[in-house]
Amino acid sequence: MKLVSYEYAGQRGLGKVVGERVIPLNQVLPELPRSMAALLAAGAEVLAQVERVQVDDEALEFTQIRLLPPVTDPQKYLAIGMNYKAHAEEAARNGVPIPKSQLWFNKQVSCLNGPFDPVEMPKVSDKLDYEAELGVVIGKRCRHVSVAEAASVVAGYLVCNDVSVRDWQMRSPTFTLGKSFDTHGPIGPWLVTADEVPDPHNLMMRCWVNGELRQETNTGDMIYNIWEQIAYLSTVMTLEPGDILATGTPAGVGVGFDPKRFLAVDDVVRIEVEGLGYIENRVVAEK
Amino acid sequence: MKLVSYEYAGQRGLGKVVGERVIPLNQVLPELPRSMAALLAAGAEVLAQVERVQVDDEALEFTQIRLLPPVTDPQKYLAIGMNYKAHAEEAARNGVPIPKSQLWFNKQVSCLNGPFDPVEMPKVSDKLDYEAELGVVIGKRCRHVSVAEAASVVAGYLVCNDVSVRDWQMRSPTFTLGKSFDTHGPIGPWLVTADEVPDPHNLMMRCWVNGELRQETNTGDMIYNIWEQIAYLSTVMTLEPGDILATGTPAGVGVGFDPKRFLAVDDVVRIEVEGLGYIENRVVAEK
Repeated sequence: MKLVSYEYAGQRGLGKVVGERVIPLNQVLPELPRSMAALLAAGAEVLAQVERVQVDDEALEFTQIRLLPPVTDPQKYLAIGMNYKAHAEEAARNGVPIPKSQLWFNKQVSCLNGPFDPVEMPKVSDKLDYEAELGVVIGKRCRHVSVAEAASVVAGYLVCNDVSVRDWQMRSPTFTLGKSFDTHGPIGPWLVTADEVPDPHNLMMRCWVNGELRQETNTGDMIYNIWEQIAYLSTVMTLEPGDILATGTPAGVGVGFDPKRFLAVDDVVRIEVEGLGYIENRVVAEK
Repeated sequence: MKLVSYEYAGQRGLGKVVGERVIPLNQVLPELPRSMAALLAAGAEVLAQVERVQVDDEALEFTQIRLLPPVTDPQKYLAIGMNYKAHAEEAARNGVPIPKSQLWFNKQVSCLNGPFDPVEMPKVSDKLDYEAELGVVIGKRCRHVSVAEAASVVAGYLVCNDVSVRDWQMRSPTFTLGKSFDTHGPIGPWLVTADEVPDPHNLMMRCWVNGELRQETNTGDMIYNIWEQIAYLSTVMTLEPGDILATGTPAGVGVGFDPKRFLAVDDVVRIEVEGLGYIENRVVAEK
């Protein structure tokens, strides 16, 4: 299934994508939770009920709705740094040491943004950069998950742009402020449930800026794979349905070029992951 | 006012502390939101209504209830590192460079813990440490708040123990995993509203381990004060009602001693901030 969060006529709701249309799930199933995290927490039976819903006259056209981040209300948005070898090397040239273990930081949940919504160039920086990433959405509350069991706690996948403000990121080794400006967490376009992604470690991922290909990788090139990431994180903390993990970006980010190629106002960043669709965000000046 | 979140007979609710008793607010005011973040978001009129509630026969004894973290559901829990000079120096001796600007990291929200609940010694580490901190709770959605306006967005204050797993913290410069083990975010005992804290920069703060005084400071010794912290964070991101900021720990943490004095199972950590009460947590082995 492809599940979306959307806004239509001032109301927010969950939808299921069927072909070119979106079924307004909360209208068809009035008892359904109204947020993606709550829907995932409701468990397999409720998701099976969603699976059975058919297109009918109430289905909406994409042109009628605004897509929101598929998960609008995760408890956590964690991201792993330097998880593709060539990117780790380009980052090391910019002063970030290659980590000896999984390097996790936070994108603050308040930075989440829709798949086609504008990304703001902050007033306080012109060092705006893109990072294409495969996003994982957790489906079950879990702790101490083994590598072997990790796939069973994944609800699905989506495309992330880990938008970064490089000068703010580098000012502190903890990264989080430079990763968390409002609007800097576009995700989407939908949550593709795990059953439709037979091998998340064999997906082509590409990022274009104004049509120019900047990043291209296969997700199989991750240093720590998704199952290792879930095992490591869940050693520390309980993961909750709706939690988002951004699994690392490959080489080709703007700060990796010489001279550096940061984003400018009106640039358009498009990120596509095989089987998951694409997100596309224009840079606008902060109001 | 002193506001609590509590559990009583399997139900969660908000309460107001009056003397030795807790008024069950959701019982007295059935329309009231049931979580602290939602209550703060409801605004000044609703809080004024809470202010007017009087003790009556329904009030509970502290012995009847379990206190939860006063804010159970913040969107964000941010913490500033090395914000007291003597602590910054002791941390620098352990390899963390003294920052040139505000150093913010995350405690994952999933680590929140009640003011008197046990703190777990993780299976994967014996480098458990305490950090006494003054916590600030945001009361208004805000962005780009000036230093001069910052006090107006604060709902109130509470006591935090920024429990830290030092080996996991040091493994990554981003800190967050070592700061976010489940149970490692005890806060409380209550949210003291800002009107009862005339000067949050002039409060004595003390931390004892098994009755031995380990940390003692005046909050006026912060390097970046609370207003500067709010201004800096809100340059980047929207702060939401219920968001928690831990404002830094003074010298005297276990890792700062030579030889280091980490916590052991059965140790009891008590942290007190003048006017805000105390929290007290016993270390237990992770199950």
